[in-house]
Amino acid sequence: MDGIDILISEVGPRDGLQSIDAIMPLEAKKAWISAEAAAGVREIEVGSFVPAKLLPQLADTREVVAHALTIPGLTVAVLVPNARGAEAALEAGAHKLTLPLSVSETHSLRNLRRTHEQVLEEARAIAAMIAAQPPEKRPHFEGSLSTAFGCTLEGAIPDAQIARLAERLMAAGCDEVGLSDTTGYADPAAVKHLINLVRDTVGEKTLTGIHLHNTRGLGLANALAAIECGLTTLDSSLGGLGGCPFAPGASGNIVTEDLVFMLEAMGLRTGIDIDRLVATREILAAAVPNEPLYGFIPDAGLPLGFNAAARRPVKEVA
Amino acid sequence: MDGIDILISEVGPRDGLQSIDAIMPLEAKKAWISAEAAAGVREIEVGSFVPAKLLPQLADTREVVAHALTIPGLTVAVLVPNARGAEAALEAGAHKLTLPLSVSETHSLRNLRRTHEQVLEEARAIAAMIAAQPPEKRPHFEGSLSTAFGCTLEGAIPDAQIARLAERLMAAGCDEVGLSDTTGYADPAAVKHLINLVRDTVGEKTLTGIHLHNTRGLGLANALAAIECGLTTLDSSLGGLGGCPFAPGASGNIVTEDLVFMLEAMGLRTGIDIDRLVATREILAAAVPNEPLYGFIPDAGLPLGFNAAARRPVKEVA
Repeated sequence: MDGIDILISEVGPRDGLQSIDAIMPLEAKKAWISAEAAAGVREIEVGSFVPAKLLPQLADTREVVAHALTIPGLTVAVLVPNARGAEAALEAGAHKLTLPLSVSETHSLRNLRRTHEQVLEEARAIAAMIAAQPPEKRPHFEGSLSTAFGCTLEGAIPDAQIARLAERLMAAGCDEVGLSDTTGYADPAAVKHLINLVRDTVGEKTLTGIHLHNTRGLGLANALAAIECGLTTLDSSLGGLGGCPFAPGASGNIVTEDLVFMLEAMGLRTGIDIDRLVATREILAAAVPNEPLYGFIPDAGLPLGFNAAARRPVKEVA
Repeated sequence: MDGIDILISEVGPRDGLQSIDAIMPLEAKKAWISAEAAAGVREIEVGSFVPAKLLPQLADTREVVAHALTIPGLTVAVLVPNARGAEAALEAGAHKLTLPLSVSETHSLRNLRRTHEQVLEEARAIAAMIAAQPPEKRPHFEGSLSTAFGCTLEGAIPDAQIARLAERLMAAGCDEVGLSDTTGYADPAAVKHLINLVRDTVGEKTLTGIHLHNTRGLGLANALAAIECGLTTLDSSLGGLGGCPFAPGASGNIVTEDLVFMLEAMGLRTGIDIDRLVATREILAAAVPNEPLYGFIPDAGLPLGFNAAARRPVKEVA
């Protein structure tokens, strides 16, 4: 990646906002995305193409994408639950589409109201739609293996089932698969185990990212395990928005500010200016004032002498 | 270690209690220590032999040690700031003495009012006192390299200074040295770097433990880095007591409950029953009701199907 070691994919405008009741005004979303991009964030999942009646918080995703596309160098990612959502995403011009497939079929039926076969059918339809675009307009298409570290309904999911679904997502036409700890069940050993399992199945180049939650406090330890395995894209959310891990259904994303601090402290380049990133919290605090914002670095401050600009030599990770 | 992979050294009764204004009644301390030991905790730092006027919270350390010594199988550890404290600790019969030496001399002067030479002189005096005991009464003597990951007054401390002080503590008669992130400045790469540095200097068998804080949210990630380097003793505090990381001087210890969860989830045996450990929080909540208790596991609960008793096969850590 150009001048960075780890790509932070900010998911707050999608995963954070869909987890809270308040609806953030469009202008605040635009300001948030612009400010994070100006702080150096290079990829932002800006919304989800789902019916507005299901997620009114994200009803303006088309407008948000249009704004995000005006920011030079920013990869504009969206979630799509199905081919209809992907059609809207293609029309909007998003750079990256992520289709979740819950490896727990029980969860898939409850959450997306689709069996594995039906989700894979959607994946094939999306891949066909993308292939029909002119080459320069084809977005990157990721299949995300959600509940990969266990399901609140089924518990642990067998390795063979996860591997098979990863393989089938690639066969359906995904460019890449990702791992998602939807339930906050992951631990560092499980992260390493699953990364190796999926890479052994689909190849090293087609698993580069992971979506971790901090529901049980292990978010950054799990992120460390992932980068030690060589993953290079980590999802996180500014202020851990929507992250109250104890509210039913809340996501508890990793806090972007703390993740960036950890990586930069380790000598890994994210391209992000921590002070500017922290300042971006003001936009959230003003736009959704009743939502708690999480994170240690914004309160504790950077260590004395810590200077991301005059970075220390890169230290060995593994 | 007998039947376990990682030794959790609970430091709440010392580091937690010294960081809060409230004074926990002796009976509550006894109940706390007994309950944690019954949950499977095998080492507890129960107090500090410092003048009562400096730390009235720990003025009853002698009585606490006497109680802890009645618990079969428990290693009773205490902090000693100097030879006078060590004398009291020897009289009390503690199993393990830890003398802090701040690798930042500025911090050492402010905190202990002693230069490095003066602290090393205390270490020699303590080692001589221990050597004068009959063999079966000699406690384990650890020199703890505090502010090892940086100092709020001096910033980063040069590697050569840390290595030299580790060497000199061993030469002074310590059985072992430990690393302590007093300021919450550590990151996983720094943890690995310093462990390797000190082990290269004093040998692998004389650095087995680390005292980490969670001031900047990296506590568990740093703990993971430490065990990946082969350390086997981790300090932590029940409920992260005294851990409000944003109050001046507060410690922000790693939360024992979350640490045990991480390790057990990874298939590493701590010997600790998480449910019984979490239940121990009730004693703290009753005895120091105005102190916030931290931790994710107590609120989020264990993952569905998680069962430390019927443990999953040990997974590879590195």
